[in-house]
Amino acid sequence: MTVTWEVRASEAKTKREAGFAKVEPPLDGIPDQLPVNSLGLPKIVLTEKELKITEEYTITQLLTALRTRKFSVEEVTRAFLRRAALAQAATNCLTDLLWDDAIERARYLDSLPEPKGQLFGLPISTKEHQGGIGRNIESTASFVAWIGKKHGSNILCDLLWEEGCVFYARTTQPQTIMHLETESNVYGRTVNPHNRNLTPGGSTGGESALIGMRGSILGIGGDIGGSIRCPAAHCGIYGFKPSLKRISVMGQMTHMVGKEAIISTPGPMAVDREALELFMKIAIGAKPWRRDASLMVKEWTPYKFDRPPKIAVQWWDGVVRPHPPMTRALKEVAEACRKAGMEVVDWCPGIDHSKAWDIVSSLYFPDGGEHILNIIKESGEPVLPLTKFIIHEQPTVKKLTQQELWDRCAERDAYRQAYSDAWNKTADADGREVDVILCPPSFGAATPHGQSRYWGYTAHWNLLDYPGAVFPVTVVDPARDLKDASYVPKNADDQFVYDMYEPEKYVHAPVCLQVIGRRHFDEKVLAALAEIERAMGR
Amino acid sequence: MTVTWEVRASEAKTKREAGFAKVEPPLDGIPDQLPVNSLGLPKIVLTEKELKITEEYTITQLLTALRTRKFSVEEVTRAFLRRAALAQAATNCLTDLLWDDAIERARYLDSLPEPKGQLFGLPISTKEHQGGIGRNIESTASFVAWIGKKHGSNILCDLLWEEGCVFYARTTQPQTIMHLETESNVYGRTVNPHNRNLTPGGSTGGESALIGMRGSILGIGGDIGGSIRCPAAHCGIYGFKPSLKRISVMGQMTHMVGKEAIISTPGPMAVDREALELFMKIAIGAKPWRRDASLMVKEWTPYKFDRPPKIAVQWWDGVVRPHPPMTRALKEVAEACRKAGMEVVDWCPGIDHSKAWDIVSSLYFPDGGEHILNIIKESGEPVLPLTKFIIHEQPTVKKLTQQELWDRCAERDAYRQAYSDAWNKTADADGREVDVILCPPSFGAATPHGQSRYWGYTAHWNLLDYPGAVFPVTVVDPARDLKDASYVPKNADDQFVYDMYEPEKYVHAPVCLQVIGRRHFDEKVLAALAEIERAMGR
Repeated sequence: MTVTWEVRASEAKTKREAGFAKVEPPLDGIPDQLPVNSLGLPKIVLTEKELKITEEYTITQLLTALRTRKFSVEEVTRAFLRRAALAQAATNCLTDLLWDDAIERARYLDSLPEPKGQLFGLPISTKEHQGGIGRNIESTASFVAWIGKKHGSNILCDLLWEEGCVFYARTTQPQTIMHLETESNVYGRTVNPHNRNLTPGGSTGGESALIGMRGSILGIGGDIGGSIRCPAAHCGIYGFKPSLKRISVMGQMTHMVGKEAIISTPGPMAVDREALELFMKIAIGAKPWRRDASLMVKEWTPYKFDRPPKIAVQWWDGVVRPHPPMTRALKEVAEACRKAGMEVVDWCPGIDHSKAWDIVSSLYFPDGGEHILNIIKESGEPVLPLTKFIIHEQPTVKKLTQQELWDRCAERDAYRQAYSDAWNKTADADGREVDVILCPPSFGAATPHGQSRYWGYTAHWNLLDYPGAVFPVTVVDPARDLKDASYVPKNADDQFVYDMYEPEKYVHAPVCLQVIGRRHFDEKVLAALAEIERAMGR
Repeated sequence: MTVTWEVRASEAKTKREAGFAKVEPPLDGIPDQLPVNSLGLPKIVLTEKELKITEEYTITQLLTALRTRKFSVEEVTRAFLRRAALAQAATNCLTDLLWDDAIERARYLDSLPEPKGQLFGLPISTKEHQGGIGRNIESTASFVAWIGKKHGSNILCDLLWEEGCVFYARTTQPQTIMHLETESNVYGRTVNPHNRNLTPGGSTGGESALIGMRGSILGIGGDIGGSIRCPAAHCGIYGFKPSLKRISVMGQMTHMVGKEAIISTPGPMAVDREALELFMKIAIGAKPWRRDASLMVKEWTPYKFDRPPKIAVQWWDGVVRPHPPMTRALKEVAEACRKAGMEVVDWCPGIDHSKAWDIVSSLYFPDGGEHILNIIKESGEPVLPLTKFIIHEQPTVKKLTQQELWDRCAERDAYRQAYSDAWNKTADADGREVDVILCPPSFGAATPHGQSRYWGYTAHWNLLDYPGAVFPVTVVDPARDLKDASYVPKNADDQFVYDMYEPEKYVHAPVCLQVIGRRHFDEKVLAALAEIERAMGR
């Protein structure tokens, strides 16, 4: 008798529950009726000390506390394990709580005569399909057909492990890992910790929900169309998508292996900016190209501005007008930068961004989606609406011949070239080139579930392979972020996004912005972000 | 009435002749019956001063002579123009002699109050399909169908131009630019200046023949399967294939634009080693990534050994046994390195190199060759034997589906990974990793025409994207390089190559070796080559 997909998914969930059952002491005090905003729950459920450990330290400070043994690794690990379990109860963000593995690892680290490694004792969470280090790592990559698939670690996890971290939680991702939300037939839907009626974004939405609740302070995501930056933005945390081939992706459980026209890169998601830089420094400092032959041999060389950066503001991408809170955030930050003495200009490359979407969406599935749809078919699980959106509803997604693939790649390269030329031109007027672009990481704050149908504010930069960092700015304020009743949408996407906005839907929703740099200038993006946050008074 | 391919090719040749007719004074004294070895011709045909300018200086010395105005740019340019015309008469290596353009450029440079640029006044030759700077640049890329195709410069030529060079000659390449020889239906066959019964190699065989006769001292080639290194080796000159994406290929006239599974890179070919380093320093020092968005942002950082390099000798690739002169060259250089205090070990990666050929040959033509064959068909020109060899006779060359392409790319990536792991392992015994591999750039010296049917000694490193430099070592010595009558070939390729060797066929043929480094360690390869040549007493 064939097992139905429902039975397989239900078994996977039962297995997951067994992991949560280990939580010790069990979580107590979670209300039966979960509140819209989950951020009040930790104060009800966790101990004073757990709250202190998980909330009161930056990552750098927590690392110092661990290194000086102010806290044992085990107590820090337990605090995050329990807070992660709470985040799971509130948002459905985990696929795995590695209780036994994490505690064993913590005890081992505590037993060392001297703290060792740049991440000594730090609990780190990972997106499920990356695999990890533990006794029984399986990865579904959110396909029902892959439930129970044995998996191990990957190079990135290994590097972090060697620096002394603790892996303790693995997080959800959507079907196909190609939605900007997080829903699968294996584990269901993950919700936003700030407002459960909104998505935490995706595809690394388990991470963003978890980190948004400080159930983790540093996690690993992956980004091919916005999958780090969109969820980071929707949950009010920091995220960084580096240029391709700087960080190893080797060892992930994934589909379409060998496809190369557009690929994904892992990157950090965290509660503070310093953690992004630390993560990159460690991931690249370990010379990962010696383990992963596909990586670029390029050291991490922190960038220092010798004068205030020149910032270009992308008020909109010419296709879909951002919602009012996003525009307000741009204005606030641009103003702060100007006040801090930076040159702030408008970003007007004179290039049609909708063309970028045509190219990149086609290159996501040059086989017309056949490979992925076959994996879905294998188990009989339904094709979810956002899978339909990204495969069936994109006229660009077709089975390509080799010649058609080359043509698409040539269009991609021409687009990259035109964009690079446009960036060069920013120096024409005053000899000073724009250093970074300040732009929205999405058309708005976290959207109501099922509505993430415009990728332009993130996927555009994947097409260009430009590094991008997301950082929190503000929160939707229904009183100030009024709908512009006079706006006339320019096209169907613009109309869809315009119609979506009603301020009251977005209560508590964080608003983040994105800093974009030129390809391979990852270090400069993080340096510019530091300058911008300094200008914001942080 | 349709014009036949023969008529079109003949018109192209007539047009080319018009360029040679400008040579002033005309070449005098070329014997009607050309000798087997063309290297004696310059002494008969050129003036004392022309011989001095074209023969007695290294590139660095000539640049100094130009900068100090010991010679005018015009006299240097004229000397090389005339010597190039002679090389053409002897070997059929040119597609274009840019007489007027070069002299005009030279006069302009002479008119400058101060010499300007790192290449001030240096004549540089280029492979035809790269295009160039001149009044009427057309490129056929060796397709009859493309005769008369307007073309311009490319980014690399622009960068060199800005450093003050003179472009004066463009050189032949084979049909499809995918032979390790140089024969096309447009211009016929190019022969080796050392022995006209042998090939100068290919696909940059016009350059190698020209530089082999010192009709040029620095030229630009391109390499996707050996097209810089094989011809450099066959003509006894220096050549360097950098890692991909360090030097711009943008602006070439080429086929299969947008294909990316295996791509080509330009690189220098020259009469001395210093020129390779100078070329790279200039090409990368100009930050070409600002003009070509596809390039890696990675500075050129000369490498310095702090102790003698550790050299691994690849005696053979396990598939095809090199001819005796090649093995002798390896022995001589290995011995010199050992005497100079270097650690010299055998290269035994434990990996089947024939697998690399299966992968790379398939990825050269993932459409089964359709695109290229259509361009050939367009004019009705015949498919040449070495085109048949590389497309029709390779069982791996097939029209692939997207899934099959991904599978091949995944095999490529796995092969790269295995090779990188094997290289890491060389440190296992003594903690010291091999710095570079010393290996044959071909199974032997230049082959008799039409016999270049094994690419393993070069294409293998393209699959891996490892940088490789070729340098001259010795000359075939029929008295010492006897055929090993006892050798039993291991497979059909080995048999073919074994049967080919008879020492007397190879009279005057130079023997070169190749230095291979890890991916992106281009600087280290050139540094190791300097150490090796020092050990050789140069």
